Amino acid sequence: MIRAIAVDIDGTMTSEDRRLDVAAVEAVRMAEEAGVPVVLSTGNVLAFAEAIATVLGTSGPLIAEDGGVVFDQRSGQEYVLGDRVEADRGLEALERKFDRLEQTRSSNLRLAGLTLKRAITAAQAMEVFRSEGLDLVAVDSGFAIHIRSPAVNKGNALRKVASLLGVTTAEIAAIGDAENDVEMLQAAGLSFAVANSHEAAKKASTYVTSGSHGRGVAEAIDKVLTLRR
Amino acid sequence: MIRAIAVDIDGTMTSEDRRLDVAAVEAVRMAEEAGVPVVLSTGNVLAFAEAIATVLGTSGPLIAEDGGVVFDQRSGQEYVLGDRVEADRGLEALERKFDRLEQTRSSNLRLAGLTLKRAITAAQAMEVFRSEGLDLVAVDSGFAIHIRSPAVNKGNALRKVASLLGVTTAEIAAIGDAENDVEMLQAAGLSFAVANSHEAAKKASTYVTSGSHGRGVAEAIDKVLTLRR
Repeated sequence: MIRAIAVDIDGTMTSEDRRLDVAAVEAVRMAEEAGVPVVLSTGNVLAFAEAIATVLGTSGPLIAEDGGVVFDQRSGQEYVLGDRVEADRGLEALERKFDRLEQTRSSNLRLAGLTLKRAITAAQAMEVFRSEGLDLVAVDSGFAIHIRSPAVNKGNALRKVASLLGVTTAEIAAIGDAENDVEMLQAAGLSFAVANSHEAAKKASTYVTSGSHGRGVAEAIDKVLTLRR
Repeated sequence: MIRAIAVDIDGTMTSEDRRLDVAAVEAVRMAEEAGVPVVLSTGNVLAFAEAIATVLGTSGPLIAEDGGVVFDQRSGQEYVLGDRVEADRGLEALERKFDRLEQTRSSNLRLAGLTLKRAITAAQAMEVFRSEGLDLVAVDSGFAIHIRSPAVNKGNALRKVASLLGVTTAEIAAIGDAENDVEMLQAAGLSFAVANSHEAAKKASTYVTSGSHGRGVAEAIDKVLTLRR
């Protein structure tokens, strides 16, 4: 029995232009009304996730920073699953090697890692971390270079969410579209990749929806709620 | 000619439960598609306003912290119209007088003031500010006690927004519902209070919509766009 639904925001609930799809908003509210808490998941900072949860009315824990942060909306407790201090050490190592590195505007709000403007490649950063023995990875999201601990991913965050909700990950359905959703899709009991998904997200999922973005989310949530009846 | 529309989020675009009204979302997007930038306005922090602007797709400058902060989305420039340092001095003065004062969770994200949990009244705080000669006001929003400079209000913020957009405030329409929207409604060339508005907001407005919350916003935006044709 599915007892919670984890939904990626970026590219899944939103279109290419980053706008929320109204179909997804309505589906998410239908899940909440049916007593199934929705867990919003994003690569963005916690303040972003909190704002979206507030205006959508989702009650489940929040996954931010690609799994680096989990926030329990009921208790107000934040769980940092990454290591900002190690990421800052990584930045120092990069600054010794490269000029003109700049953090993105939201980087100072990050608790579990940091984000750099794309002046260097992820591979260049990884090379420095390896040679310095730093326990860090660099990932290019297309918007920024994310510096974080290798253990940070949405799958590990989903395990934390499950324990906060008192359910197993097998009782959680997940909906996503991107490579950074793969671990979450694999960890969930039932998983959906929306039609616009990256091939890796499709391969990691039980179902691929016929609709893209918000219509795909609505389709997936409808399936989950139908199966509960 | 109305060239921009400023809309309050809290209680205007959202219902009592803080959820965004889909009717308001669609109306705001219609304005943007008609080439009329929408200016979101909130008592919340800038990170909240930015998140909502991103997922709604509004392009106008943002008003956060009840006018204490204006953010130009085009240039990425933040304008702080309040004084956090003075607010921190106010907090120190209050702490000398009262025990167990606690800032709200988002207070550390505030640039132009701060917010306290409601352990003391706004009147008690005002009394301390007066006796210490501090240039501060305390306002009870129902959620928190806001400490900020007296000059901070959404009307002054709207004047800043107008200059950023290169229009006059007479060319801006404003939509709101609460006492903290009054200065913005008065400063705007055309103003709408949604049906659920506080009496003061209704008195400050050209029109009171027949619909509440999001339906009121849709009604107001429809009027503005019709008048442009």
